[in-house]
Amino acid sequence: MKNTAVLLLSCPDRKGLVAAIANFLLAHEANILHADQHQDAELGLFLMRVEWDLHGFLLPPADFPEMFAPIAEKYQMTWRLAESAHKPRMAIFASRFDHCLADLLYRYQSGELHCEIPIIISNHEHARRLANAYGVPYQHVELTRDTKYEVEQMQLSMLSDRDVDFIVLARYMQVLSPHFTACYPQRIINIHHSFLPAFHGAKPYHRAFERGVKLIGATSHYVTDALDEGPIIEQDVTRISHRDTLEDLVQKGADLEKIVLSRAVRWHIDNRVLVYANKTVVFD
Amino acid sequence: MKNTAVLLLSCPDRKGLVAAIANFLLAHEANILHADQHQDAELGLFLMRVEWDLHGFLLPPADFPEMFAPIAEKYQMTWRLAESAHKPRMAIFASRFDHCLADLLYRYQSGELHCEIPIIISNHEHARRLANAYGVPYQHVELTRDTKYEVEQMQLSMLSDRDVDFIVLARYMQVLSPHFTACYPQRIINIHHSFLPAFHGAKPYHRAFERGVKLIGATSHYVTDALDEGPIIEQDVTRISHRDTLEDLVQKGADLEKIVLSRAVRWHIDNRVLVYANKTVVFD
Amino acid sequence: MKNTAVLLLSCPDRKGLVAAIANFLLAHEANILHADQHQDAELGLFLMRVEWDLHGFLLPPADFPEMFAPIAEKYQMTWRLAESAHKPRMAIFASRFDHCLADLLYRYQSGELHCEIPIIISNHEHARRLANAYGVPYQHVELTRDTKYEVEQMQLSMLSDRDVDFIVLARYMQVLSPHFTACYPQRIINIHHSFLPAFHGAKPYHRAFERGVKLIGATSHYVTDALDEGPIIEQDVTRISHRDTLEDLVQKGADLEKIVLSRAVRWHIDNRVLVYANKTVVFD
Amino acid sequence: MKNTAVLLLSCPDRKGLVAAIANFLLAHEANILHADQHQDAELGLFLMRVEWDLHGFLLPPADFPEMFAPIAEKYQMTWRLAESAHKPRMAIFASRFDHCLADLLYRYQSGELHCEIPIIISNHEHARRLANAYGVPYQHVELTRDTKYEVEQMQLSMLSDRDVDFIVLARYMQVLSPHFTACYPQRIINIHHSFLPAFHGAKPYHRAFERGVKLIGATSHYVTDALDEGPIIEQDVTRISHRDTLEDLVQKGADLEKIVLSRAVRWHIDNRVLVYANKTVVFD
Repeated sequence: MKNTAVLLLSCPDRKGLVAAIANFLLAHEANILHADQHQDAELGLFLMRVEWDLHGFLLPPADFPEMFAPIAEKYQMTWRLAESAHKPRMAIFASRFDHCLADLLYRYQSGELHCEIPIIISNHEHARRLANAYGVPYQHVELTRDTKYEVEQMQLSMLSDRDVDFIVLARYMQVLSPHFTACYPQRIINIHHSFLPAFHGAKPYHRAFERGVKLIGATSHYVTDALDEGPIIEQDVTRISHRDTLEDLVQKGADLEKIVLSRAVRWHIDNRVLVYANKTVVFD
Repeated sequence: MKNTAVLLLSCPDRKGLVAAIANFLLAHEANILHADQHQDAELGLFLMRVEWDLHGFLLPPADFPEMFAPIAEKYQMTWRLAESAHKPRMAIFASRFDHCLADLLYRYQSGELHCEIPIIISNHEHARRLANAYGVPYQHVELTRDTKYEVEQMQLSMLSDRDVDFIVLARYMQVLSPHFTACYPQRIINIHHSFLPAFHGAKPYHRAFERGVKLIGATSHYVTDALDEGPIIEQDVTRISHRDTLEDLVQKGADLEKIVLSRAVRWHIDNRVLVYANKTVVFD
Repeated sequence: MKNTAVLLLSCPDRKGLVAAIANFLLAHEANILHADQHQDAELGLFLMRVEWDLHGFLLPPADFPEMFAPIAEKYQMTWRLAESAHKPRMAIFASRFDHCLADLLYRYQSGELHCEIPIIISNHEHARRLANAYGVPYQHVELTRDTKYEVEQMQLSMLSDRDVDFIVLARYMQVLSPHFTACYPQRIINIHHSFLPAFHGAKPYHRAFERGVKLIGATSHYVTDALDEGPIIEQDVTRISHRDTLEDLVQKGADLEKIVLSRAVRWHIDNRVLVYANKTVVFD
Repeated sequence: MKNTAVLLLSCPDRKGLVAAIANFLLAHEANILHADQHQDAELGLFLMRVEWDLHGFLLPPADFPEMFAPIAEKYQMTWRLAESAHKPRMAIFASRFDHCLADLLYRYQSGELHCEIPIIISNHEHARRLANAYGVPYQHVELTRDTKYEVEQMQLSMLSDRDVDFIVLARYMQVLSPHFTACYPQRIINIHHSFLPAFHGAKPYHRAFERGVKLIGATSHYVTDALDEGPIIEQDVTRISHRDTLEDLVQKGADLEKIVLSRAVRWHIDNRVLVYANKTVVFD
């Protein structure tokens, strides 16, 4: 079982940054396992992910913030520290199509997704049996246009009661209100069944079919107030031809959606994603 | 040197179609080399491409239309016959970026593109040396907003003088007028540097960079009056990451553009493309 | 629920073939939904798949063989007829890694795989719970080097008792004996975790890691006596980099294996695969 | 025109490495533009690429080795320093197929490949016209089995006379002798027309066609004594089907070869490639 810390930070780019961080970690005997950085020359930004072994590290994580504060302040850093021993708590929202849900559950059970799943919330009943097989709690929450506000309040309190860290919309077919999304900034991951920005909004496979594109795609992104316009975490495409019917697109697309969403979720859990300027850096 | 005929046709789908065509060809001793068909169930359409050896075929191509007319009429077919011995005459329009032009010229010289190139028209002078190396005539035609009408008239007469069959816009940065495009329906092939319909219009790489997409694309399509909305012949994408600058996108995109455009041109030349409902069938 | 017939055939290529088949089907009022053919010029072979609606077709499937015999004989055809209403019976063999098994079960339950699964045979116990959730019978069959012959005999009688049509080796880690494979010619589908013929045999991910390849692959093929050398049905690859550890390869590969195997299984079930010259034609 | 320095190094992994390098660069006022590192946990290796602006850097490159020596010694580093202002001198060896040659020449002329090309050596005459169009010297060198030794000696002195830094085998169909390859260790880049290690050796497209693979590939690697077994720099694949003839494979493969080889060459020129354990790290 690995026991590491990950530091994710961003700040204005300037000389001495890497030396300052490296010297700080060395002073506390950090054994660095991975380090990756990115500089956005246009915006003058520096972004970094560094992971080190907590075995032999002399600074208790609880004391990290206080000790790191002078450096963070000097370089105007936005930062966060995560420990691999802590499993984040993920809620899954689902609707009628359950292929992404089934895929996430299998990856969770196999240990690929290093998280807890305290709750699945669905506006359909049918996936309960699958959830049970994986031992994950399942809540069926009906939703109509008139009850949206009340239902969201109930959902939020369910999430809060279970200390949920982030939410995955696994082909959840309801649009969340701005109030809801504001409660989990950069912590709601959606899968959209097109290569965004193409075919944002409703019925992307229908529109792809109609337009006669030669590839279809899927996009996983953080949810913001602007529909389908949040920072993209991952995308992929697959080839189609004139022989593919609309049903074929839906089926081929389902495989894409599973792969793309599961990558985004894994990277989020592994603290590999940094958001800036409505884009993501995914440290690999 | 192969000597074959290709029949491309589309018509309302109904029983007996394949038998009628197969019997007609058999009656004249056609040795069929390839046959491919497609049925669009939704639109009730039947589309077919059949290629046969002209060696041993008893019907002179000149007599084909008259002999085939009764079948074509009975089944309300739209059809055309092409002979591989006939090399279509392709004009290339180019501007400042000449990577697609250079790529097409190499493929032409190597025999991959089975066509003649009677003329390159460019609003820049610099690619003349390359054109000369390949022995292809090069016309520099200046163009300003005010002279657009006159210039297009001149271009059209250049094309007409040289019996041009179809036009390839190899990153030609001028929008053609509806009058011009109407002269070559389904015979002008463009390359757009995005995965359409995403980023149609101007500066697609800039916008892709700004949006933070994880893949960039290129699309080759027939030109219609509606900008970037004609029938798509081919598309492809390549992966990018946060490490790629705008310049990297342009460079990676250039390789895509060459591949995608050259495929579309080859398929057009080989009579593999049928247009219907603003889509293409590409017989392979 | 669709009710169609699929005719798959291969024979020496010669004039009049398409006409003969088309006329036969027309004579019995077949409404052809899809037809696809392939000619191998080098081997002088003609291969065809044609699918038609059984509604309105005047020939009862039971009478098809007798009526079609004269044509089949005249053209020396190897052929088979399948009806979409008949669901083939698939057995799954599995071992410790159960990602392909879980994937197939989900696709079965969702209706993507149009088959019955009368039995899962595994030399491990742990996937029973998953099988139960999908309502599929699960047999745990221990196997040692010494008992291989007896175990295979037992497995064969289990398959025979359940009228199994074909077998999928879903990362089954035992090599089948020639006697076993001879019982199901072109009816055992394996997934090998490399891009064959690279890294055939044992431990392909280890060897790919050691060789420093930049892509890893997966290959689904029919099992023959020659290990990993049967006709390839489908392959795909994914990109890796120096940052990927051996564990990353295994994880990325697992996603490939699921996709590649499930495509091969679906195509087999849908009667899209024809084998010749140790290759496959996959009609799309 | 950018004026930067690139430091590439590898050494046993240990604490304090990053701090030591960062402090050294900071002490001389380096403005770091990119830094990337890789740790091979299994081999206990640390590898790094760091690029900084030479504008404002206080240490003249000529003095770098002496000043950096104490750090390099302490950490047992293997390292090299490259300046972007220096254009490496690339020789191209070609044979009958000239698509890779034409591609490299275009990329050279367009500025994508930041190098000089003092010489093309070919055992065929026909590409001279193309070389002339790009203003690159072309040497036709005949070669027979009996004259191999003498010819290689002549080639080596041609390269030496022109201060060639590295050699690109652009579908050069002769196997170089161990003596020759020893003269340019990790400085001869080959393109092999298969997805290595599949189909190493002769006639890979023929063998791919015969085996019935569903994807074909191309591999660029450094040349070593062991044929087709040197460190892989880049690979890619493209999909084929039963419809593709051997000629189609050759044609589709040619596009792959161009892309894969040109990437490898660009990365080599940009000092992005580090070799260890017969693998490459390609810093991006």
